Amino acid sequence: MQDPFRTIEWKDNHIRLLDQTLLPREERYLDIYEVDELCSAIKKLAVRGAPAIGVAAAMGVALGMLKAPRSDFGAIADCFRALSSQIAATRPTAVNLFWALDRMKSVFDANIDKDLNQIQTILIQEAVSIESEDRRLCVRIGLAGRDLFQDGDVILTHCNAGGLATAGYGTALGVVRAAFEAGRNIRVFADETRPLNQGSRITAWELMKLGIPVTLITDNTAGALMQAGEITKAIVGADRIAANGDTANKIGTYSVAVLAHRHEIPFYVAAPLSTIDMKLASGKSIPIEERDPMEVTHIFGVSVAPRGVSARNIAFDVTPNELIAGIITEMGVARKPFENSLRALFV
Amino acid sequence: MQDPFRTIEWKDNHIRLLDQTLLPREERYLDIYEVDELCSAIKKLAVRGAPAIGVAAAMGVALGMLKAPRSDFGAIADCFRALSSQIAATRPTAVNLFWALDRMKSVFDANIDKDLNQIQTILIQEAVSIESEDRRLCVRIGLAGRDLFQDGDVILTHCNAGGLATAGYGTALGVVRAAFEAGRNIRVFADETRPLNQGSRITAWELMKLGIPVTLITDNTAGALMQAGEITKAIVGADRIAANGDTANKIGTYSVAVLAHRHEIPFYVAAPLSTIDMKLASGKSIPIEERDPMEVTHIFGVSVAPRGVSARNIAFDVTPNELIAGIITEMGVARKPFENSLRALFV
Repeated sequence: MQDPFRTIEWKDNHIRLLDQTLLPREERYLDIYEVDELCSAIKKLAVRGAPAIGVAAAMGVALGMLKAPRSDFGAIADCFRALSSQIAATRPTAVNLFWALDRMKSVFDANIDKDLNQIQTILIQEAVSIESEDRRLCVRIGLAGRDLFQDGDVILTHCNAGGLATAGYGTALGVVRAAFEAGRNIRVFADETRPLNQGSRITAWELMKLGIPVTLITDNTAGALMQAGEITKAIVGADRIAANGDTANKIGTYSVAVLAHRHEIPFYVAAPLSTIDMKLASGKSIPIEERDPMEVTHIFGVSVAPRGVSARNIAFDVTPNELIAGIITEMGVARKPFENSLRALFV
Repeated sequence: MQDPFRTIEWKDNHIRLLDQTLLPREERYLDIYEVDELCSAIKKLAVRGAPAIGVAAAMGVALGMLKAPRSDFGAIADCFRALSSQIAATRPTAVNLFWALDRMKSVFDANIDKDLNQIQTILIQEAVSIESEDRRLCVRIGLAGRDLFQDGDVILTHCNAGGLATAGYGTALGVVRAAFEAGRNIRVFADETRPLNQGSRITAWELMKLGIPVTLITDNTAGALMQAGEITKAIVGADRIAANGDTANKIGTYSVAVLAHRHEIPFYVAAPLSTIDMKLASGKSIPIEERDPMEVTHIFGVSVAPRGVSARNIAFDVTPNELIAGIITEMGVARKPFENSLRALFV
């Protein structure tokens, strides 16, 4: 089955992406012609999810280079560097952003002898490749993980690691979808995922579009359902995975993992290799974004807290590797000890 | 310091209560002359919190009996029974509701030989006593618990167990308040407490009014703060405590307790003896209310989920006694094994 939407695409020398801040009420696509607009879209989460942010970053570089100065190589390289820095500064946690910028830089460096028109074409091709590869990788992640799920499984997921967090098909939801498409009788509980409700707004919407049975719950409810034996598996995506398997993902993921551990419910992480940061020994060094407290005190613009209240809005947490049953990638499922199994995926 | 509000009071032959559904945007008091209105107010959580529900139930009986038929005792007793049943059916989990109805029934039974005017007066007096006792009990709970909190403590609380959950002063927040009034340098993190945001709407509002430093967080954030060592204690109220210490409280309390346990953070429950249901051996038999899924799919009337999505709205969960460091009551702090220590409080 085709995705019922297109997360992001390159279109006639600009970027088109689905504005996810408006879901599920409105399916509106943004046509982006300027890197400033793209950076705003990333910051405000019009496009979000680590793999999708990677694609957006690559396309952003290609977009910005269309306006590179037609002068000497030095000026062109300066332009590339400035674009990269600007895009890199949008969000700190998802490593796919930096991975995609590095990949664009390698391609740029390998083609410095070409003329600007050629460089521009090559960068666009590379960004489009990253997008199309990402969707294929997600399908492979789905196939790698689907047999972890059997008839009767009731699967908890947190935030959105679906088609809209990627170029399509999804990571955690890609695995769920692959199991569903293989005919397994499965159901999903979707955590609403405060503060920005990606679970209620996006995951529930995607699963309903795909016909996969989904029940929405508050983040507070997962524990009670586990106590009642109503959840058999948990699966989430990742924003960055350290070399030892420690996983940064949307705030609240850690609570899910701790609860799953207590109830002996397997807790899986699904992500492409581009989300694994082998340069970081552990999750302790993953930079964690803290966002505007307004996202906590206001919901869709409606105030839900007293005026002037102090609030914290930590966007991600880190789940230690010991709580993770397996990390599902396009190269297969890594198991403990992750130090060895993750390294083995890269060779 | 006086409470900066009055949760519920008996006033010139009717009930006046603060409509908590409108907080913090509006401080509006409801004047209630009919039992049907009172039952609606309890059901929609205009008045909520186990001790406050107990007070409301007692006042509701007194209110309804003002319209008892002026005929034979049989008709008066039928009226009392019908009122009791109607009020008992509003909410199933908070045991204080049933405790208060039982207490009103004992008083009614002890005065069946009086004439209706006298019975009405006695029932009003009893309901008003329950209200004024509750506030005094909360102050005693505060004193019993305050020395568990020291300078530098950063205290996580979930939902609202403050003055607005009681006749005043509060249970869990009463302990925090007593420690603060004793000069301790403490701070509070308030879980927003989805789906109805009693944490952001009520707890934050109460603590700000009292001048106690409070920071609002999403329910998802507690784990990350514990990992970072930013929380030193946790305290919550209770809707019903079984004889073995298992505690039913607002959904998500169990997650807080499990996380606190993992991080070796003491997790306390504060409640009056009227919240302890010695008839129930364990928390397994506590009836758990499930509420309208609209409370999950809509926030202040704004839809946050796709139309037609399936949702679950379990209102309470049960924290097993093993995760509880102490149960703070007006008679002192019960410790493990709670089977013995709770029984000892009643003699």
